[in-house]
Order: sequence, then C-alpha cells, then structure tokens
Amino acid sequence: MTTEKLPRRILLGPGPSNVDDRVYEAMSRPLMGHLDPEFLVLMDECQELLRHVFGTRNRMTIPISGTGSAGMEAAAVNVIEPGDRVVVAVAGVFGVRLAEQARRNGAEVVTVETEWGTPIDAGAVAEALRDGPTKAVAVVHAETSTGVLQPLEGIIEAAHDNGALVIVDAVTSIGGHPVDVDAREIDLCYAGTQKCLSCPPGLAPFTMNDRALEVITSRQVPVRSWYLDMSLLANYWGSDRVYHHTAPVSMIYALHEALSIIVEEGMQARAERHHRNHLAFVAGVEAMGMKMQVDDPAQRLWSLNAVVVPDGVDEAAVRGALLNGHGIEIGGGLGPLAGKIWRVGLMGASSTSNNVLLLLAALEGALKMQGHTVPMGAGVAAAVEFFVA
Amino acid sequence: MTTEKLPRRILLGPGPSNVDDRVYEAMSRPLMGHLDPEFLVLMDECQELLRHVFGTRNRMTIPISGTGSAGMEAAAVNVIEPGDRVVVAVAGVFGVRLAEQARRNGAEVVTVETEWGTPIDAGAVAEALRDGPTKAVAVVHAETSTGVLQPLEGIIEAAHDNGALVIVDAVTSIGGHPVDVDAREIDLCYAGTQKCLSCPPGLAPFTMNDRALEVITSRQVPVRSWYLDMSLLANYWGSDRVYHHTAPVSMIYALHEALSIIVEEGMQARAERHHRNHLAFVAGVEAMGMKMQVDDPAQRLWSLNAVVVPDGVDEAAVRGALLNGHGIEIGGGLGPLAGKIWRVGLMGASSTSNNVLLLLAALEGALKMQGHTVPMGAGVAAAVEFFVA
Repeated sequence: MTTEKLPRRILLGPGPSNVDDRVYEAMSRPLMGHLDPEFLVLMDECQELLRHVFGTRNRMTIPISGTGSAGMEAAAVNVIEPGDRVVVAVAGVFGVRLAEQARRNGAEVVTVETEWGTPIDAGAVAEALRDGPTKAVAVVHAETSTGVLQPLEGIIEAAHDNGALVIVDAVTSIGGHPVDVDAREIDLCYAGTQKCLSCPPGLAPFTMNDRALEVITSRQVPVRSWYLDMSLLANYWGSDRVYHHTAPVSMIYALHEALSIIVEEGMQARAERHHRNHLAFVAGVEAMGMKMQVDDPAQRLWSLNAVVVPDGVDEAAVRGALLNGHGIEIGGGLGPLAGKIWRVGLMGASSTSNNVLLLLAALEGALKMQGHTVPMGAGVAAAVEFFVA
Repeated sequence: MTTEKLPRRILLGPGPSNVDDRVYEAMSRPLMGHLDPEFLVLMDECQELLRHVFGTRNRMTIPISGTGSAGMEAAAVNVIEPGDRVVVAVAGVFGVRLAEQARRNGAEVVTVETEWGTPIDAGAVAEALRDGPTKAVAVVHAETSTGVLQPLEGIIEAAHDNGALVIVDAVTSIGGHPVDVDAREIDLCYAGTQKCLSCPPGLAPFTMNDRALEVITSRQVPVRSWYLDMSLLANYWGSDRVYHHTAPVSMIYALHEALSIIVEEGMQARAERHHRNHLAFVAGVEAMGMKMQVDDPAQRLWSLNAVVVPDGVDEAAVRGALLNGHGIEIGGGLGPLAGKIWRVGLMGASSTSNNVLLLLAALEGALKMQGHTVPMGAGVAAAVEFFVA
C-alpha cells in the first residue's frame, strides 16, 4: 500500500475534520531544527495565535507534543498530587477518562454524574465541593461522546468559591464554540488540533493561568511525568529556550497555518458559521423524522451532532454505505451509546453548507437501502429552506 | 511570519535530519479518520515496517504518539512500579534523563556512571546487578550528547542473568547503526523518527517482547500514565481496534513513507552509508588538526560526530556562521560538554558525501573567520581521498 492511493474523505465524524490545503502545504515545508532562530520566531507566533483562540493572555500557552488526550494527562499530572481531592463532572466518555486520569495520578476522585446526553448541574458540583477541601474541579466543555455543550459558569464559580482550580476540556469546542478562558476565569484548559481548529491530529493546545502555575510550582512531590512537566516545558517555550524534547516541527508549521486561517475568518464569524450549519443539519434531521440525542437545543454542540438511530436501522451499515458510497465519514456511538447514535461532526473546514446538504442527501439514500422509510427529500429541503431564509 | 518564507536548511545537527521529498508528499496527503478501514491497513503496514527496522518479530511494535522522549517515558512508566530497583547506565544527557524518568516513576535508581565520551563498562553494570534484585537495566545505545556508541552485549547478558529486563534507547542509532532487537534479546526498545529514520519529529517507534509484556500485565498497581499505557495502546493497535486516542494520522503517513524508503535502500546498505560518511568526515576533521571527542574509533557513533572545539574558538560563532552563511545547522554541546564540542549529525537523508564535503569546506571558512589557522583545503582533501579510495 502507498499513501498515494489514499481516498479523499469528507470527514464528518468526531474528528479529525477536513484540513485546508494551506495547512497541508505548510506542514510539508522544509524542516528546521527545533532550536533554529527562525523556528523560535514561529513558536512565539504560534503561542500568540493560541492565546487568541483560547481567549487568554496566559503566558503559559503552548501546544503540547501529543494528541488531545496528552493535554488531558498534562492537566491532571501537573495539578494533582497523591491524596488530593478532585471533583470530576462525568456525563460521557471524556468525563470518565478525566476521572480515570485523576485516579491514576493518585487523587481521591469524587464524580458528579448525570445521564449521558444531559449536562451536569452546577448545584450538584457545588454540593460535592462542600464535602471537603478540593484541589480541582474538572469538566468537559464539549462532550464528544454525547453532543452536549456543558454550561461552565456555575461550576467555575462554585469551584473558585471553594478554592479549587478549574480544569476545562475544550477539545471539541475550541475554534467552534466560544471558550473564552480569561473571561470565564478557567485556570487550565486543553484542546486538540483535529476538531474545530482543522489541523491534523498530533498536538494538544494547552493554557494555564498564574494561579495554576503557582499551585504547580508549590507542589510537594515532583510531577510524575517528565514529558509533560510544565515547569520543564516552560523553559523551552519561554525565553530560556532550554532544550527539553525535540518539538514536532512539521506539526507546528501546520498549527501555525491553521490558526492563521482562523484569525483571518475571525473567531465570532467562525462560531456563527458552526452554529448556522448545525441548525440547518438539525432541521434536516428532524424533517426526516429522526431526533437528536440532546433534547434541549441550547444544550447541543454545534460541532458534534448526536443523532438517534431510528428503530430497526443497522447503524454500522449506514456508516458503511456513507463511507463506501460517498466517501463520507461519520462516527458511531461510544460506551452506553454504542449502536444508538451517530456522531456527526461539523467542525472547522468540515462545517460547510455543502457538507450539510450532501450528508442529508446521502443519509436519505443510506436509510432507504436499509428499508427505512424517509419522507422523500424532506431533509435536504428543510436545510435548504433554513439556508435561504 | 509565514511558513512560505522559511529557509531550506541542511540539517547536520543532533536531529531533525533532512527528509526526502517523498516523505513531505506523503505527510500532506488528505487526512482520513483514525478508524477508517484504509487507515487501519496503513497502521498494520507501519507496524510491519517498524519490525523490519527494529529487527524484531515483536507483536507489540508501534509508533507512540509523541517524540522520542515520550518513548523513553513509555518504557519507564510501563515497566516500573514504585520501589522497583532499576540500574541505569549514565554517560551523557540521555542517560541522566533515563535515571530521572525512573526516579519519577518511583524506582530505587542505581546509576552506573563513567566519564562522558566513553562507554559504560559491562562489568560495572554486572556488579550493580549483584547488589540486589533488579527489575530493569536501562541503557542508551547511541548517546546523542557525547557521540558514543555503547556496546550492548555484555550489559544485556548481565541483566538477563540477573532476571532483569533490558530497556534500550535507540533514538540516535535506529536506521543508522544495526539495532537488532531480537538477535540481541533487547526486551524494550524505543526510538525517535527525526534522526536516522529521516522522518519529521513527533513519533516514538517502540517495541517490546512477550517477556516485557508479561511483566507489565502482572503489575500490582496500574500504569500511572493513561496516554502511554501499553495495555490500552495494544487494544487500538491490535486486532480489537478499541479507540484510545486519535492517532496523529499525517505523521503516520510520513513514517510509513520514511520506512518504505529505508526498506528500498536496505538496512545493511544504509548502515554502510552511515559508516562510510562518518569515516570520511572524521578523516577531514583530523586532517584539519582537530580531534574527535571519542578517542576510540570503534566507540564512535556514525550518526552523531562529536568534534572537540579547538582552543580559543568561539563555538557558537562558528555555528552561527555555518547557519547564516551556508544554511547548515550543526549542534553545540549539552551539559558539561556545552561550549566544548560540536555535534555533527550525519543521519538518514543528511548522511551524504556531498554534505560531508560541503560541511568541511564551510567549517574551514568559519574557523578562519575566527582567526583560527587551518591547513588550507586539508579537510576536504582528506575526505575526497577517502571517498575515491
């Protein structure tokens, strides 16, 4: 097999999303050394671009050399010391993973749970905080496994009222939904590159404020991970430029370009685009007689649309038909939602009106192949109507 | 700044090395999902190619989603449980780092040390092993900070005689020097992509045998790192394909192509090329009246040539002149060797006779600019003589 013959997919799954050709071009520019003066300029710019996208002035804002999950691990391993009490909001796979990360780092983990497909109640988090001194509250902003947009304000307030740091997973929201790290007073936030930032997977944008930095620098025991130790990483990304590990140079080129594209579009225009395409898609889904997994429209992610699989439909066969017949990737459910939902990503460069229309059309065909009755053309018609309104 | 205007460097430092255009092309092919059936085929092939390069049939042979240092951390975090005794051979920066990794993972670390620029004596390791039951012996095959090729045979034998696993850092040897994981009975081995494999940095090739797997699966406490937990990674890279994290798809494309190029050249021919260009470079260096940091020719790395900076020469100024005047990157010394040596990488696609000749010529000019007397043309002449002999 050679990569020359790889198919060109329309990526409407839970990530990666499609990538602008400019990003591919940037990624394949000639390598430089990771301490080359020209590369250091690019690193500085990358940090500044990340600050813009995170909505922060945090000095310590860097892309971690691993995927989004490495970002999650970096937050956990730097903040948590053995025996620390950590409250984790769990309403999906990534909440479960956050709790597992905290546990592996020796935390006494208190989970606040709710049914998958609904957001965590801030009151329940506040209650968990009252039971004992808590080091950190961890919460997933955009739960990729359920399609829920988690409101953050009440949780952040409760955490700070109780002296706890707030860790926010913004993997599937950054670049699609407003994250606003500084305005919301989020202490640590991590993300991934392959969702609404439309950059290939491999880096984890990460930011933390001085309050978090203070907690980390006053640790009693060293950070267990050398690779993700923020105090060491700060020396490479800071003005000292002390060699830590060899930065993934090509990925940094790609991220620099992907972030530049976002700045050109404008954060607000980008969020509005995600919102609009999401609404059009939902209109189409409902016109086809299907329903969304998340009931309350205000609680739905714009970037990740969880659609309930109609009774009697083989969900994997539908995904197969979309992939093989149309080159379209969508995702299946995870954990308790496996087999029950499709996860449709409308992220970054993949969030276009054309993709919405094409997917609805292709979905109609795939459902009919399964013997499932769908009102003819109703999905596409509803989306068209939305777009021209 | 835009990546369009980045300079094209001749990368003769400690890595990254230059990359074949085929690798850039592969890297920038359209993204697929990390669970796409076509991508899964590519993953399988990548594993098979890695087995070839490592010289192993180990089932658990994968590229870890991080740089070489993440590979080191993966070895440490999976093998070591708190309280385990670990013997680490330390004769350079990467030996120091291995010991630090082991310590952070709760090991009782016993270091066996020697002067930087010489290899560790197997007898000293055997002695350290006699002092108590030891979980693992960790050793750097190619110490990038000193240019020493560490003989492995005696150390591996001593470790196995004492029931300890052997962890080998092959970051700077793989693809340049023979590593031969199975023939040498190395239990765990990790590498980087950006040295003699001539692939951009960002992945850590990793392999371990069933003996290591058994030690890991019979752990008393869970692996502290979720991101690097081999039992979880095995479920994604194995036939189950359980989602763990989003694979860095573009980097996998690049690695697939870089490894294909190595197979086309042949492992033995590639090693011979590295050896030949190293010898020509050393001949040139010595003809210029300079000396190598490593005295014994048999202990010198072919991939990383440590040249002693002549008295009175400002080593950083020479590096600056090479970079700015010729677009050539070479490295400075690290730790106690900072300011005392240059580190010249002749790795992968960077290991060519043309690069040897060009560097020797440019170096002559840079030294003269520093007021340092060099026998005119002697370096280049010696290398030419070597090549035509």
